[in-house]
Amino acid sequence: MTTYTAPVRDMLFAMNELAGLEDIYSLPGNEDVSADLVEAILDEAGKFAAEVLAPINASGDRQGNTWHDGEVSTADGFKQAYEVFCDTGWNGMPSSTEFGGQGLPVTVSTAVLEMWKSANMSFSLCQMLTLGAVEAIAHHGSDELKSTYLPNMVSGKWTGTMNLTEPQAGSDLAAVRSKAEPRGDGSYALSGTKIFITWGEHDMAENIIHLVLARLPDAPPGVKGISLFVAPKFLVNADGSLGARNDLVCASIEHKMGIHASPTAVMVFGEKEGAIGYLVGEPNRGLEYMFTMMNHARLNVGLEGVAIAERAYQAALGYARERVQGRIIGDRSGETKPILHHPDVRRMLMDMKARTEATRALAYYVAGCMDRARSDADENVRKDNQSRLELLTPVVKGWCTETAQSVTWNGIQVHGGMGFIEETGACQHMRDARITTIYEGTTAIQANDLIGRKVAREGGHAMAALIEEMSVTRAQLEAHADSQLQKIGASFGKGILALREATDWLLANYERNPQAAAAGAVPFLKLAGTVAGAWLMARSTAIAIERMQGPDAGFYGAKLVTARYFVEHVLPEANSLRDAIVNGAESVLALPEELF
Amino acid sequence: MTTYTAPVRDMLFAMNELAGLEDIYSLPGNEDVSADLVEAILDEAGKFAAEVLAPINASGDRQGNTWHDGEVSTADGFKQAYEVFCDTGWNGMPSSTEFGGQGLPVTVSTAVLEMWKSANMSFSLCQMLTLGAVEAIAHHGSDELKSTYLPNMVSGKWTGTMNLTEPQAGSDLAAVRSKAEPRGDGSYALSGTKIFITWGEHDMAENIIHLVLARLPDAPPGVKGISLFVAPKFLVNADGSLGARNDLVCASIEHKMGIHASPTAVMVFGEKEGAIGYLVGEPNRGLEYMFTMMNHARLNVGLEGVAIAERAYQAALGYARERVQGRIIGDRSGETKPILHHPDVRRMLMDMKARTEATRALAYYVAGCMDRARSDADENVRKDNQSRLELLTPVVKGWCTETAQSVTWNGIQVHGGMGFIEETGACQHMRDARITTIYEGTTAIQANDLIGRKVAREGGHAMAALIEEMSVTRAQLEAHADSQLQKIGASFGKGILALREATDWLLANYERNPQAAAAGAVPFLKLAGTVAGAWLMARSTAIAIERMQGPDAGFYGAKLVTARYFVEHVLPEANSLRDAIVNGAESVLALPEELF
Repeated sequence: MTTYTAPVRDMLFAMNELAGLEDIYSLPGNEDVSADLVEAILDEAGKFAAEVLAPINASGDRQGNTWHDGEVSTADGFKQAYEVFCDTGWNGMPSSTEFGGQGLPVTVSTAVLEMWKSANMSFSLCQMLTLGAVEAIAHHGSDELKSTYLPNMVSGKWTGTMNLTEPQAGSDLAAVRSKAEPRGDGSYALSGTKIFITWGEHDMAENIIHLVLARLPDAPPGVKGISLFVAPKFLVNADGSLGARNDLVCASIEHKMGIHASPTAVMVFGEKEGAIGYLVGEPNRGLEYMFTMMNHARLNVGLEGVAIAERAYQAALGYARERVQGRIIGDRSGETKPILHHPDVRRMLMDMKARTEATRALAYYVAGCMDRARSDADENVRKDNQSRLELLTPVVKGWCTETAQSVTWNGIQVHGGMGFIEETGACQHMRDARITTIYEGTTAIQANDLIGRKVAREGGHAMAALIEEMSVTRAQLEAHADSQLQKIGASFGKGILALREATDWLLANYERNPQAAAAGAVPFLKLAGTVAGAWLMARSTAIAIERMQGPDAGFYGAKLVTARYFVEHVLPEANSLRDAIVNGAESVLALPEELF
Repeated sequence: MTTYTAPVRDMLFAMNELAGLEDIYSLPGNEDVSADLVEAILDEAGKFAAEVLAPINASGDRQGNTWHDGEVSTADGFKQAYEVFCDTGWNGMPSSTEFGGQGLPVTVSTAVLEMWKSANMSFSLCQMLTLGAVEAIAHHGSDELKSTYLPNMVSGKWTGTMNLTEPQAGSDLAAVRSKAEPRGDGSYALSGTKIFITWGEHDMAENIIHLVLARLPDAPPGVKGISLFVAPKFLVNADGSLGARNDLVCASIEHKMGIHASPTAVMVFGEKEGAIGYLVGEPNRGLEYMFTMMNHARLNVGLEGVAIAERAYQAALGYARERVQGRIIGDRSGETKPILHHPDVRRMLMDMKARTEATRALAYYVAGCMDRARSDADENVRKDNQSRLELLTPVVKGWCTETAQSVTWNGIQVHGGMGFIEETGACQHMRDARITTIYEGTTAIQANDLIGRKVAREGGHAMAALIEEMSVTRAQLEAHADSQLQKIGASFGKGILALREATDWLLANYERNPQAAAAGAVPFLKLAGTVAGAWLMARSTAIAIERMQGPDAGFYGAKLVTARYFVEHVLPEANSLRDAIVNGAESVLALPEELF
């Protein structure tokens, strides 16, 4: 069983020093936010995560949920924890003040959400889905829908879900078949089967508000014929009280590799008279509405990668500090020492630490772009940040979750044989992490979005702007008085070059040979993530070296070593990724299917 | 639930065309072996694996073993399958004819063992441990021990175990504390607790023969004071019948991430009067005896990596051929097609296929070295093959199992959301594979053996000989008439260079700065595996291109594409590994422990 301590100091570094939160405080709407307030929020959230959510993480994994006759019982302690979570106001914290949230900058709520995800990923998913549903209704729903549902969803009294996937419609939502028939009173009768519905049924809240994609009778085929509906588990009376049970039921829950305490439901709508649903916004625009919200959800899943990596790192480090085993090579002290002193254990821990910090830096940086894109007074700044946000959203989702795979894997390896024993807790982090590269769009879906919509179809301008900004950082480092920083700058320059060459190749080939471009899409996403991560790590060295003279010398010294590790061990992967993209498409595509 | 079809054609390619089995047939002792016989054995074994072992793989994973009062019940069907396995002679097949085995070349039994491991890794471990115990007794035991135990262990009537690990003695066996007191009649009273004992207790065989490491009363401390004992679950009477229950008991079994159907026991010896044990060989040489046998076990665990990768590939390919989802980019046919046509799904499958074939090529090649080292008439050939075998044993163990991690991971990814659902079966392969980089010595233990004993301490001669032979292959390809092969030769040349540079760096630094060398040990092992795998893939292209004109054109054409994929997508990793080794030691070692 592993414990969790929120890495508040690291989070503040990523927020203030890398994502530029100090500027964000001064943006319109953030007048009430200050550095002291943010630190106080993080401290309180850290306590809640450590004391309430982390202790039920392993037990929730062991126990899972139980389904009986359409009802789902959550694991011991979840209901109680959820009640306190909502009572303390944590559930609604990221939402707008209009509906009872605290309206904090995204950068701040990002750090707080990371804590929930680290402490208890299964638990955190309930809030994540609810927040997504809140966003969809808030942006696209009628005033009546908003006033009926949002206050209780923001407070957490009611939770929300996203009903997108169907057995034949996974990555391809164009294949959605669920139906919505007008009932004549402005509402609709929904029918169909939805699968993989996270927190689709449970016993933590008195009502569950399902957002459902379905087709109207006259809808055109494909993605342009899908509408979005609200279908509550219990209908809501005019006075806000709960009415009749709606015709939708949880037919079963899945037996999964991880996130055992998060129920994944098969939902059946309209087995009798049809589930009563209410149209969100205009007909046939459901997918478009889903996507506004899905982009934020993708950033949050990327953040899950950061969070679970952090948790796995803490567990491995704790074990490595305590476990004594073997003579340390080249050590003449004759003392027995913890395994942290073995060079390869250090290598694994440095690798976990460096990759986790780089993914956090990127996720928080992009959260900062979202804040600026929303609130900056200067239209050009808003536009530039929106463009950067759009470019990097698939990278955060794809690269941070892919990175979490190797970090949680190493988390087990550091434990040796004990790592494979479930009671140790290291396995759970790896099993939980495994879903993150799949849901909310697989890495390939993110990568196709990146190479298509975000790079090739806009002529590569957003990427060129990013590369330009990276080159400024490189030049600053190469011109620095410190020789370590010069070296980091030079190595970073090779990474930039690899990204530039791969981008040029992509721009030249995307239209002409789309299959070849797609064959290199995932390597391109990883390349973009690796170089963007290296950029923020490189920037952190320039900050760290200034502040190493101050009171926090150890902290900043560690930042320098960690960034150096990243540049020396992780960044070289950029070259092999570039090679695979630029030279490798033919061998991906050459084999006739019968010869696989 | 996934099925399994033994890849007999691929295995024959790796055996005959890459490992040179055709020459091995003519070695002394192999007079009865022929190509036809080998093919017939593989066909029969493939049927047994598919029809008997594969069907109880998923159910065994779900059910696991149950412990009750010291007894362990195996999952449904295991006992019956084991009975047929032994009756058919498969259990003893790899053993020497002297004790009832078939005395086939290692290369042949390697292919057969791969099938058991693919079909049901949990089941296969029972035989693997028994074979290890047989080898230890056969090489080091007295004639009495051999005649008492070996015939029943070879037939499988009795199974064997290895009792090495103790709570404080994992990778570091010098810390073993279990005791052995002389009983005055030539036997010993053993006491102590052993953990992680694979198949330490079960209900499939009438007796279990434990090999146990323990210390005699006057033994020197450390590794030179450990002796090896045989301690049967039931004592064996002079007439070979079973006698009294020995004083050793299974105190519990572990709850693990994978290989659920393989019981992992905590064994307690001598809670009462002491477990009766018999010394194997001479006192205080136990560790040395264990190591003769452990080297073969390490090759077999490496083979588990190949096997589980093959199984995961088959499962993913089967799904990709059936599942229809999404429009294929750049496809103007308008047809709906299975996901195998998506470029990124192809990329993942090619990656799985290429890495699996490369690891198989290496494992079989090294099995061939073992055959030649044992039986070749020419002493120099024996010596060269022994040297190559020793050099590559840690590489097969480390690299093949590390490779299986990414292959089984991709196996889930190809399945999308279904991959995360346990019923699909893809998760089990990833969970089962997770132990292979840990047991029989972690990857770091293998890597330290490689850089120390196998490279630095013998002056790099074995590695130089391997690089020399690789360079011949490269020169042949570069001089080939076919331009594809020329390109493969040139790319392979870069891989050789990376290995040479890293080896030179290692030789220059191992004595001077052993911690820096150890910091790069695992990257060096991966580099060696990647380049050795590329070597065999490169060799396969020269064979394939000749035979592409023949009747098996499709098969050989696929070999060419697969090798090209490996050289274009996997081999470039050699450069980043070299960079990490040569430039990266300082940043691994620089951080003070309190700053992690």
